[in-house]
Amino acid sequence: MAADLTHFDTDGNAVMVDVSDKSETTRVAVARGRVVMAPETMALIQRRGLKKGDVLAVAQLAGIMGAKRTPELIPLCHPLALTSVKVDLSLEPENNAVAIEATCKLKGQTGVEMEALTAVSVAALTVYDMVKAVDKSMCITDIHLVHKSGGKSGVYEVR
Amino acid sequence: MAADLTHFDTDGNAVMVDVSDKSETTRVAVARGRVVMAPETMALIQRRGLKKGDVLAVAQLAGIMGAKRTPELIPLCHPLALTSVKVDLSLEPENNAVAIEATCKLKGQTGVEMEALTAVSVAALTVYDMVKAVDKSMCITDIHLVHKSGGKSGVYEVR
Amino acid sequence: MAADLTHFDTDGNAVMVDVSDKSETTRVAVARGRVVMAPETMALIQRRGLKKGDVLAVAQLAGIMGAKRTPELIPLCHPLALTSVKVDLSLEPENNAVAIEATCKLKGQTGVEMEALTAVSVAALTVYDMVKAVDKSMCITDIHLVHKSGGKSGVYEVR
Amino acid sequence: MAADLTHFDTDGNAVMVDVSDKSETTRVAVARGRVVMAPETMALIQRRGLKKGDVLAVAQLAGIMGAKRTPELIPLCHPLALTSVKVDLSLEPENNAVAIEATCKLKGQTGVEMEALTAVSVAALTVYDMVKAVDKSMCITDIHLVHKSGGKSGVYEVR
Amino acid sequence: MAADLTHFDTDGNAVMVDVSDKSETTRVAVARGRVVMAPETMALIQRRGLKKGDVLAVAQLAGIMGAKRTPELIPLCHPLALTSVKVDLSLEPENNAVAIEATCKLKGQTGVEMEALTAVSVAALTVYDMVKAVDKSMCITDIHLVHKSGGKSGVYEVR
Amino acid sequence: MAADLTHFDTDGNAVMVDVSDKSETTRVAVARGRVVMAPETMALIQRRGLKKGDVLAVAQLAGIMGAKRTPELIPLCHPLALTSVKVDLSLEPENNAVAIEATCKLKGQTGVEMEALTAVSVAALTVYDMVKAVDKSMCITDIHLVHKSGGKSGVYEVR
Repeated sequence: MAADLTHFDTDGNAVMVDVSDKSETTRVAVARGRVVMAPETMALIQRRGLKKGDVLAVAQLAGIMGAKRTPELIPLCHPLALTSVKVDLSLEPENNAVAIEATCKLKGQTGVEMEALTAVSVAALTVYDMVKAVDKSMCITDIHLVHKSGGKSGVYEVR
Repeated sequence: MAADLTHFDTDGNAVMVDVSDKSETTRVAVARGRVVMAPETMALIQRRGLKKGDVLAVAQLAGIMGAKRTPELIPLCHPLALTSVKVDLSLEPENNAVAIEATCKLKGQTGVEMEALTAVSVAALTVYDMVKAVDKSMCITDIHLVHKSGGKSGVYEVR
Repeated sequence: MAADLTHFDTDGNAVMVDVSDKSETTRVAVARGRVVMAPETMALIQRRGLKKGDVLAVAQLAGIMGAKRTPELIPLCHPLALTSVKVDLSLEPENNAVAIEATCKLKGQTGVEMEALTAVSVAALTVYDMVKAVDKSMCITDIHLVHKSGGKSGVYEVR
Repeated sequence: MAADLTHFDTDGNAVMVDVSDKSETTRVAVARGRVVMAPETMALIQRRGLKKGDVLAVAQLAGIMGAKRTPELIPLCHPLALTSVKVDLSLEPENNAVAIEATCKLKGQTGVEMEALTAVSVAALTVYDMVKAVDKSMCITDIHLVHKSGGKSGVYEVR
Repeated sequence: MAADLTHFDTDGNAVMVDVSDKSETTRVAVARGRVVMAPETMALIQRRGLKKGDVLAVAQLAGIMGAKRTPELIPLCHPLALTSVKVDLSLEPENNAVAIEATCKLKGQTGVEMEALTAVSVAALTVYDMVKAVDKSMCITDIHLVHKSGGKSGVYEVR
Repeated sequence: MAADLTHFDTDGNAVMVDVSDKSETTRVAVARGRVVMAPETMALIQRRGLKKGDVLAVAQLAGIMGAKRTPELIPLCHPLALTSVKVDLSLEPENNAVAIEATCKLKGQTGVEMEALTAVSVAALTVYDMVKAVDKSMCITDIHLVHKSGGKSGVYEVR
């Protein structure tokens, strides 16, 4: 584990890390998370999925748009020109959960894991928003990075 | 549990719910969440907290600013003039976690639970961003509503 | 017809009109527009509507979100706390067109016609974006106000 | 005409198309549109143009700024670093119309037609906003692409 | 002079001050500033002012739009629905300066001095941007509040 | 000194200057400014700096985030993918001032002086915001460029 945090200089000032001299490579990051809910809420979302007015479709779009807002939300993130964003939501009835996975790509000088994590978070918040009238006890959980490649630290892969 | 979702009309179109006729009341929402990490990562954040360049202070500010962006991020949220936002981050060394709590207030026609949940999410993402160079395995977890009051559905309180 | 433009002062400077002393009333505006396209393009959108991945659903959401961005886009528009936004898209196969209608509401001091017109415009642009790979000759047309009420100038109604 | 829409994957999920492997070329797009109005309204704008407080100058600036917001407004547009934006507004008294033309350029991996069309749309909305106090019956019309070059699909040119 | 800063709680956390219980009053703030430049630069701006393509008109519009972005820029500012924004720029050839004055109004629970100061700052930056190709030595200076009224602290007036 | 302004075309229309054919170089800009205040206010900020809840840390973060918003605020600025932003605030008790310095970097086709100047301005406005409850007479002053390199006009250096 590295000795210290890159987002502070030696005086303790927060900095947007200087990536001017990093090489441009194709960078990919994949993140996942879940929204856990009551069984009845899960059943309601499942029924909606069969007709127009799909909770997952709205959340999916919100996730893609959220990825693009990452540098406005996360203070020390670099502005990036993402070349690809994919967000998938699926039902896990056995866990009473909506599972979310986001994949971001960039040909650039810095990684895109924050964009993937932000996409998952915004999609999860949107699921909550659309269903909260029937279930306030939902929980957004287990948001984590599952894959990262393209940087000098090599490939990171969660089992 | 309500029979159906308020964010769709009878044709299945997503709608921003009409709150024009709701009464203006003081609305409060409190949300919580955590970022779980390796013990060494936790120790590193603790050491930083003793000097300038505090991870928690940056994340706290990001959470407040994130609350204000909620209607841009969540497609069907109303634009709101929040009258108060508080975000607190604290260390839970026994859980190897940073605990986050956000409180939002508004005198208005609609609830502010999405603003509180968004504040927690953005603060959590910022903790991740600032520490990711030393620990990519962190997990953002357990984001949920703990209190809501001021609407016609009465007070919601966890536990 | 009024003698001059309200958005300039007597020195010719652009101004955001002072509405501080206007009364708070319920204001409603409805706008419409159309995206005209080749018959084959129309047929393609129709087929998509039958399964997941609906062009109209994406454009509809973009229209709602676009309404909320109006004061950022239109230089002299007031920031507003919209209380309702509805956007409907429907197919007009006889005109080879997608028809768009947006309705915005506010309890406030200024009208919401720009919000409704912006919602229609952003929804129309999104239809174009999603279909442009198969038809670059589409035309966004006939965006106009059809209803406005709640201000001191009375009700405006087309036809 | 292509068989299907690029903005959906095979499961029907909306996607921001992956352009990571597209080559960087100089891309240009030109779009046009018009705001049609009553003859008296046209005359009023003409008179303003002779002194400070020019409707067209405000709308022109709004169009340029609008082009930069395209990826925030159009859900599946890529964030882009535009290298040039030009917006021209001119009076067409014979048509009782304000004519708008926008040209966007980029050295990058994806086309800029949405940026040009958005610039025209925002400029048109701004004309409407500035003149609506004297004429609510204006119509934004005929927004279309007139030129596109730089991508692998070759040059598109209207007549 | 007050004993301590309102933007921190007793634990030293930054907070968006709770204004939920403040009364809604009409609040006004006026701010001023200047951009000082070389005499030749001043002469160039003066010449432009006589024809279309006026530096001051562009900066004036940028100032109005900037006022609306205040809560996004200043971390602890409340989101506000401004009811009036005016920005005036004038030449002070005797000082080789462009003078800027902004007036913001709101019927609300919190003051608008930050909005007026932000409008002046953004207008000044825009003057700099438009003229920097001919003069990099310009200086933005003397941005200060000249009037504030409507809050419980009474009227503040600079000489 | 150049004969005319680059931000207008020959018809007097404002334009975002076409940089498509400029070469990609590493560009750096440094800007400075100050917030001048009463001695008691200065003393108050100094005392805060010793514990959590540091005015300068909040303003520093706001400056970094502000740099990223430059193309949204300044009408004719190009959208840029900044590769580094640093903002330093320090106390100058002898001048009763907070001194601010911002450094921005980019590997790209256009300079970043507006980003550095915007970072300084937003940091200064944030200092004002956080301290205004105790001192409304503060003055933001002397914002200027101190270094610029990387463009075809060579290195600009103050003193």
